[in-house]
Amino acid sequence: MQGLILKVDCPDQHGIVAKIASYIADYSGNLVELSQFTDDQHAKFFARVEIDTANLKVEVDDFIAGFNTLGKSLSATWHFRRLPYKMRTTVLVTKTDHCLNEVLWRTKLGEMPIEITSVIGNRDTCQTIAEQAGVPFHLIEMDGDNKEAGFQRIRQIIAEEQVELTVLARFMQILPDWFCQEFSGKIINIHHSFLPAFIGANPYRQAYERGVKLIGATCHYVTSELDAGPIIEQEVKRVQHFHTPKDLMRLGRDCERTALARGIRHHVHDRTIIHQNRAIVFPD
Amino acid sequence: MQGLILKVDCPDQHGIVAKIASYIADYSGNLVELSQFTDDQHAKFFARVEIDTANLKVEVDDFIAGFNTLGKSLSATWHFRRLPYKMRTTVLVTKTDHCLNEVLWRTKLGEMPIEITSVIGNRDTCQTIAEQAGVPFHLIEMDGDNKEAGFQRIRQIIAEEQVELTVLARFMQILPDWFCQEFSGKIINIHHSFLPAFIGANPYRQAYERGVKLIGATCHYVTSELDAGPIIEQEVKRVQHFHTPKDLMRLGRDCERTALARGIRHHVHDRTIIHQNRAIVFPD
Amino acid sequence: MQGLILKVDCPDQHGIVAKIASYIADYSGNLVELSQFTDDQHAKFFARVEIDTANLKVEVDDFIAGFNTLGKSLSATWHFRRLPYKMRTTVLVTKTDHCLNEVLWRTKLGEMPIEITSVIGNRDTCQTIAEQAGVPFHLIEMDGDNKEAGFQRIRQIIAEEQVELTVLARFMQILPDWFCQEFSGKIINIHHSFLPAFIGANPYRQAYERGVKLIGATCHYVTSELDAGPIIEQEVKRVQHFHTPKDLMRLGRDCERTALARGIRHHVHDRTIIHQNRAIVFPD
Amino acid sequence: MQGLILKVDCPDQHGIVAKIASYIADYSGNLVELSQFTDDQHAKFFARVEIDTANLKVEVDDFIAGFNTLGKSLSATWHFRRLPYKMRTTVLVTKTDHCLNEVLWRTKLGEMPIEITSVIGNRDTCQTIAEQAGVPFHLIEMDGDNKEAGFQRIRQIIAEEQVELTVLARFMQILPDWFCQEFSGKIINIHHSFLPAFIGANPYRQAYERGVKLIGATCHYVTSELDAGPIIEQEVKRVQHFHTPKDLMRLGRDCERTALARGIRHHVHDRTIIHQNRAIVFPD
Repeated sequence: MQGLILKVDCPDQHGIVAKIASYIADYSGNLVELSQFTDDQHAKFFARVEIDTANLKVEVDDFIAGFNTLGKSLSATWHFRRLPYKMRTTVLVTKTDHCLNEVLWRTKLGEMPIEITSVIGNRDTCQTIAEQAGVPFHLIEMDGDNKEAGFQRIRQIIAEEQVELTVLARFMQILPDWFCQEFSGKIINIHHSFLPAFIGANPYRQAYERGVKLIGATCHYVTSELDAGPIIEQEVKRVQHFHTPKDLMRLGRDCERTALARGIRHHVHDRTIIHQNRAIVFPD
Repeated sequence: MQGLILKVDCPDQHGIVAKIASYIADYSGNLVELSQFTDDQHAKFFARVEIDTANLKVEVDDFIAGFNTLGKSLSATWHFRRLPYKMRTTVLVTKTDHCLNEVLWRTKLGEMPIEITSVIGNRDTCQTIAEQAGVPFHLIEMDGDNKEAGFQRIRQIIAEEQVELTVLARFMQILPDWFCQEFSGKIINIHHSFLPAFIGANPYRQAYERGVKLIGATCHYVTSELDAGPIIEQEVKRVQHFHTPKDLMRLGRDCERTALARGIRHHVHDRTIIHQNRAIVFPD
Repeated sequence: MQGLILKVDCPDQHGIVAKIASYIADYSGNLVELSQFTDDQHAKFFARVEIDTANLKVEVDDFIAGFNTLGKSLSATWHFRRLPYKMRTTVLVTKTDHCLNEVLWRTKLGEMPIEITSVIGNRDTCQTIAEQAGVPFHLIEMDGDNKEAGFQRIRQIIAEEQVELTVLARFMQILPDWFCQEFSGKIINIHHSFLPAFIGANPYRQAYERGVKLIGATCHYVTSELDAGPIIEQEVKRVQHFHTPKDLMRLGRDCERTALARGIRHHVHDRTIIHQNRAIVFPD
Repeated sequence: MQGLILKVDCPDQHGIVAKIASYIADYSGNLVELSQFTDDQHAKFFARVEIDTANLKVEVDDFIAGFNTLGKSLSATWHFRRLPYKMRTTVLVTKTDHCLNEVLWRTKLGEMPIEITSVIGNRDTCQTIAEQAGVPFHLIEMDGDNKEAGFQRIRQIIAEEQVELTVLARFMQILPDWFCQEFSGKIINIHHSFLPAFIGANPYRQAYERGVKLIGATCHYVTSELDAGPIIEQEVKRVQHFHTPKDLMRLGRDCERTALARGIRHHVHDRTIIHQNRAIVFPD
């Protein structure tokens, strides 16, 4: 479909939907899908609109530019994306490859509008997988003193490859603050526990020790505070007393793959809006 | 909230959302929630709108009447419901009481906008439960020759009690055609299998014989064709080889209660629209 | 079935199953079900055996007494229970009644071998529900200075009514240490979060603030440390951004009911063995 | 672990567990895990035993041979498998590659004791995936008159590669009767619906037309009757009114991958016993 996705949020007020829908209709855009949410507590309005522009009476550029007047009158923040598109994405990995494999597989199937521009590893374990999938692999050492330089190099790659989304697919390095802030809302992580339970290292061992009967995985936006960013997706799986920490790792991999894939899907379809520390997700 | 729910469906066409939202905004209604779905295959548009009428500039009656012009110009079918309301409901039972109990319990908790006007049984087993909940119980014999008279009596009760919804809570009589047609879209049944598997009698025995690893329950609108009406909700539960048919009945009760309660909830919140043999459900 | 349940745990060693099964077979007991678990990490063996005693060649009392020799030779801890039985149970409540209602309902249906000897409330809100179910209700004030006296009174009721299991069905008082210790392994609580997330007060509010996409409930044995005892069952439910804390409470009720009912079921069927801070649960 | 898995079934009778466990203990085998099930309806006993043979006092061959006497005295059917082992497996595919990919990936991770000896396709679509994983690919045309010859060729490959398990990973050919019978209990299929609903072609289209709210996949043993063999695993996923048949296919792929992987896992761990048309699955 030739079209647009419009994401918008603004203070709640009278007639927002009417104004936005009328703007679209006035120029013969076809409103294909509208998802809307009003947060009463914060008196905020959020919406995502899909617009078919096949019959648009004006140029798409003019349509986008013209929204300025309405947007400002609503004191809104908004974003247009042209369809079709593929979100340029880099995937950061260490040794574990199941999350990377899942993302590559779904990309290849065309399940999501995504283009993997590169895989970046601080180990070379995933090099073969990346290359078999036809994706360039960058090895960046990050041990000890190399860490800061490593993240500067990643920043450079993001710029060079015009990357819009960075996925941490079981990447075992804590990101520096400046990196989290520079790419705020553009880094997605998969944490191998049902957050906020078992923050930090070895969550499966922690889960085993606590004797939980369900384990989980959490896909979230990365912020400066470890494992505390807005949650996009969570997934759980039933476990029993006879499952060892190693079994939990095995079973958890399935949660991780599923939660990460769904989280990325929501993001690349522009179905998420971050509001304070929560993620609004208009589902599909 | 003083307000309105508007359900509308019409042939897909240019500018529907703009027109509806503008009509609301023009008279200072506040659009609280809008759910919309376009069925591309049938070129049909469906929507459910919640409107806060606290600041409406006209009388609610006039607002409703005035929609006539727009509705007709869209070739739409539509329905307004005033909020707050409680949907007057009768529950039909035979011997099994877990579904009745669930509905009474959620009603008492105020979980759903529903008022149980009566319980109707073709056995007296559920009389005590109904009466303890303060709900009148009608015993109507339906064996053999009494069946037609019995359903005529139910029709009379529906009229007398101004019932809008009839719930079959494990009611073990097949409804006559005329009854299904007269109350089309206003009768909800819970079937104790994952339809369309195991239509008809003894689904748990059938499920046991087939050796399925998941059992289920289906909440659906009743049509003349047995167990074939539009599905509102389904629920499943994992079972194992050692579960006997009696175990499946026990485990299935939980599916039945959950699926029925959720199905009723969707209906009484006007979140369902029947289209051919499918139910559109705008979730909450 | 006339029979016995044997629960046994002992250091792992050669031939345990052979010895236990032979002991049963030697006296013509029929081993109906055997569940076994070896914890390699702690070199511990755990088992639960159901024995049909219809053809036992000796008196059941003698069979039980005679196991002494084998049990001691294995350095085991063990427990026999005669079937059929009903576990005498008291339910502690405050205001909220959905968990109580669920337990009463399943008891009445005969789903579990349980007899509710009384309901104890520190408010009178649940009195009617208890009495309609034919169960005595004790009102025990526990505010301020009355707390210690209140728990002494509960202890007395437990003794008088020969209670074997105490269920905290959304009971909003923290139990004193001495009470937890005296009835160790005999108190089951339902906590309204997916532990160990959101320990303590207002878990649904906490869950809302954190923006989780799944909420849960946890059924666990009570120990002196708040919300930290061995977990028997957990249940979760998917939630979305538009769910308010009040919605989470409503959706959570279903998790609580289910997790509590399953947890009690495992306990009264003697399917649980507590080992350190984990609960082994042999499922049915 | 150096050890044995023993699967046994026999008419229910007095003392079976005692006899089997004693046989193991008598020769200093260590019973690591015992799962047992008595089917009261058919008076049949089923068990799976894992035995650590590190301290066995006799040769493993003699231990296996010696069981003959006990086995026959119980009128049992039984099977020993030596650990460690890898089950030699061929995977049959047509065009769709997600199930193949899942099996290859889990095999590579070492999640299951399996060795993929080859992939057999009646199209060449999956050739690259197989070869990148280092697995030989056989292209066997099966259109029209080639079908019988094709299955003869597969039979030959099974013999040459000493294949013990044949997995149909979305293989779009109906197997001839003789093939189903020759490899009875050794062919696992993944069907893309929640059987017994939507048997045969285009189940996702059927599911869409029926308007179900859950879609599923079923992993089962293949018998001569289409989609009617013993069910090993089933998986479901919630869907909504706006999901097109194409969406159902996408969502269903996840069910298929999961159900197939779990079904294969149960089989290669010898955790399944087929009894009439049902599969006993001792879970892990």
